[in-house]
Amino acid sequence: MEFTIFSILDLLGTFAFAVSGASQAMKKQFDVFGVFVLAFVTAIGGGTLRDIMLGDTPVGWMHDSILISVIIVAAGLTILFSPVINKLNFYVYIFDALGLGLFTMAGIQSGIDHDLSIFICIALGMISATFGGLIRDIITGEKPMLLTRKEIYALACALGGIVYFALRALSVPEEISVPATIVVVFLVRHLTFRFGIRLPTFGG
Amino acid sequence: MEFTIFSILDLLGTFAFAVSGASQAMKKQFDVFGVFVLAFVTAIGGGTLRDIMLGDTPVGWMHDSILISVIIVAAGLTILFSPVINKLNFYVYIFDALGLGLFTMAGIQSGIDHDLSIFICIALGMISATFGGLIRDIITGEKPMLLTRKEIYALACALGGIVYFALRALSVPEEISVPATIVVVFLVRHLTFRFGIRLPTFGG
Amino acid sequence: MEFTIFSILDLLGTFAFAVSGASQAMKKQFDVFGVFVLAFVTAIGGGTLRDIMLGDTPVGWMHDSILISVIIVAAGLTILFSPVINKLNFYVYIFDALGLGLFTMAGIQSGIDHDLSIFICIALGMISATFGGLIRDIITGEKPMLLTRKEIYALACALGGIVYFALRALSVPEEISVPATIVVVFLVRHLTFRFGIRLPTFGG
Repeated sequence: MEFTIFSILDLLGTFAFAVSGASQAMKKQFDVFGVFVLAFVTAIGGGTLRDIMLGDTPVGWMHDSILISVIIVAAGLTILFSPVINKLNFYVYIFDALGLGLFTMAGIQSGIDHDLSIFICIALGMISATFGGLIRDIITGEKPMLLTRKEIYALACALGGIVYFALRALSVPEEISVPATIVVVFLVRHLTFRFGIRLPTFGG
Repeated sequence: MEFTIFSILDLLGTFAFAVSGASQAMKKQFDVFGVFVLAFVTAIGGGTLRDIMLGDTPVGWMHDSILISVIIVAAGLTILFSPVINKLNFYVYIFDALGLGLFTMAGIQSGIDHDLSIFICIALGMISATFGGLIRDIITGEKPMLLTRKEIYALACALGGIVYFALRALSVPEEISVPATIVVVFLVRHLTFRFGIRLPTFGG
Repeated sequence: MEFTIFSILDLLGTFAFAVSGASQAMKKQFDVFGVFVLAFVTAIGGGTLRDIMLGDTPVGWMHDSILISVIIVAAGLTILFSPVINKLNFYVYIFDALGLGLFTMAGIQSGIDHDLSIFICIALGMISATFGGLIRDIITGEKPMLLTRKEIYALACALGGIVYFALRALSVPEEISVPATIVVVFLVRHLTFRFGIRLPTFGG
């Protein structure tokens, strides 16, 4: 395996997702084993659901020992340095936003490999990027952040997907459209968060 | 795609399931995105689980743009007209009961296509018809209606399945046995609800 | 199908898992149907997730009518004799610990059949043995016992898996390594429970 800039960003995104799972498990007083399980579920849950629904089995992480090592290290570091990691929240947040973009792109690519429609490809991007966190919240009994946080999170994935397919329609080469998509997801997520732009909710 | 009476009923059932998911999401103060996600999960969750367990991948809805459009429209209308939809509860309930029968029949058919036993075929019918709602309740943190509501819901699917295989054993043609099954599910669901017939529970 | 000592232990483990699901459903006041569903989910949930992720579809229980009969009988007996079963808690606990070992071994075997790494094989063993209970807790709204109970449960599966691959590396024949693995899982689970040895948790 060669380490490209993307594979490194991908592992950083996985790292951030694993940290978010491990942190939430510790807040909920899970035991050591539970912390590792939730780190895994958060980091690979979205991609696993995508692979299962597409029939890409055995699912991807089963052949990816580097990915697994990264998750184990992330969970271990979260346990050992949880006060520090809380201070490093900004970096975790940045990696998480990058991971969002990278996982979105990976999901879109899976959909294209299966000749699926643009809508489904974008849905697969969103599922890959966000369902790990949804499963994390279900397991820990939290109100799902994905669905209720009002922050622009999944929508960032969708906008990135639209940009990707727009560039593709214009025959822009992948070397440009792929990084552009990841940057769009990152920026939409980051800027809307930074300026407090939120989705409306209902009820009361 | 030609529109038969069944495909139209199927879309109406999907519509009703999507409305039920979207309504519950709004009650739980999910954001706009969350309302659409829960509409999808409720409408396609049962069929997705069936397809995944059978290995029928990519799962059905990925190639069914009409189905997806119906869900989007259902969620959109629920958001726009939620007070009206509450008044239309009776129609939603009727579509839901029809959807229950149609999804049961679709699940049974999948089992037959895979040469599975009658018991498993009926189980697949029940899973197709009811697990979307179960997942909806898990995500929203509700006590699962499927398992605790005491209303005759999944049992209606099972009785429909038994009728289907009884007619099949008697060599009754599909043109009769399939609609008969859907009608049985609908009637069992409707009449037991109408007359308050319930399943016993335990504990206290 | 011939009944070997393993197939009988396997069915006893399935029986115990089904009883645990049915018991929890009754405590939560699920209706009769819900009790049966939770018995099934608890007994076959872990193996189903394993099969789905590996692409071994249709999943195993769809072709195993004896397994299904055992689950139905287990749920039925739990309903009929729940006070007695509470008194028989010790036997349920023993079967459960045996089931843990047997399901671990079955998961490891699936991983080997797919030429997966030792780490993934052991992970599949743990998933097979423990995720049915995790799904049971999610559906019933319990804090997941697997992740928070602090008892040595999934770790017992992991230790059994390590013993299995150590024996395999030493070219010990399967006739010895397989039962040894099951015994190790059982003993680690049993002895740590007996002597109150627990995993640390976090927070407070």
